Amino acid sequence: MWKYEVAVDWKEGKTGESRCAGKPAIEVATPPEFGGPENIWTPEDLLTGAVSTCIMTSALFFIDRAKIQMRSYKSNAVGTMEKGPAGLEITRIEVEVSIELEDPAQEEAVRKALEQAEKTCPLSNSLKCPVALVVNVG
Amino acid sequence: MWKYEVAVDWKEGKTGESRCAGKPAIEVATPPEFGGPENIWTPEDLLTGAVSTCIMTSALFFIDRAKIQMRSYKSNAVGTMEKGPAGLEITRIEVEVSIELEDPAQEEAVRKALEQAEKTCPLSNSLKCPVALVVNVG
Repeated sequence: MWKYEVAVDWKEGKTGESRCAGKPAIEVATPPEFGGPENIWTPEDLLTGAVSTCIMTSALFFIDRAKIQMRSYKSNAVGTMEKGPAGLEITRIEVEVSIELEDPAQEEAVRKALEQAEKTCPLSNSLKCPVALVVNVG
Repeated sequence: MWKYEVAVDWKEGKTGESRCAGKPAIEVATPPEFGGPENIWTPEDLLTGAVSTCIMTSALFFIDRAKIQMRSYKSNAVGTMEKGPAGLEITRIEVEVSIELEDPAQEEAVRKALEQAEKTCPLSNSLKCPVALVVNVG
């Protein structure tokens, strides 16, 4: 069992600060569409980024294990929030990953690593909604 | 329907960077217990902080609506990750909120606002696991 502890304190208006011991604080706020300010991380941004980060960290585990050499790994994630019967909820997260390999012959291996990451990502496992992963290898 | 877009790029080793247009980048990494470095936000930290932030932003909506004046709102959240039948997953998030009011007579009203926040928080609604909220009013 693992525990993760985070403090969130209100500052003023619709803003606050999220802190985790030894790590840089993150300013947080209500999204602009619900009366919050611009240019501050919102819960929905953080969740979308957390899931996409979890896909990456899970992928790095399998990529390492398969001795795959990457030049780069870039990803873009889009989280969708909709009104459902129980109120607002995240209904889908789409993650598109683009990988450049040192050796193009490792394409099949890296695709398998990403498949394994998708299946084992703890954050995807924790959400009710689907996490859709698209992988481009160049 | 609302969309939230976040980029996550790998940097080196077990680290990467999470970016959201117009907002400060967040360095991210695999947790130390899975081979990552210390002192960098992990997916599990980000999720725990996102849920706790969502409780706060939802609470601020109801607190505003009820014209409650707060001196302070501080919270501490603990996310638990465990191995389940489908692999690792987040099994519980506990959020403890401590509020100081300008007018102690508003205690009942602020407790009601937090109850409403708990019920309507979009991120809690999106998780399979329970989010347990404890509220202290001083």
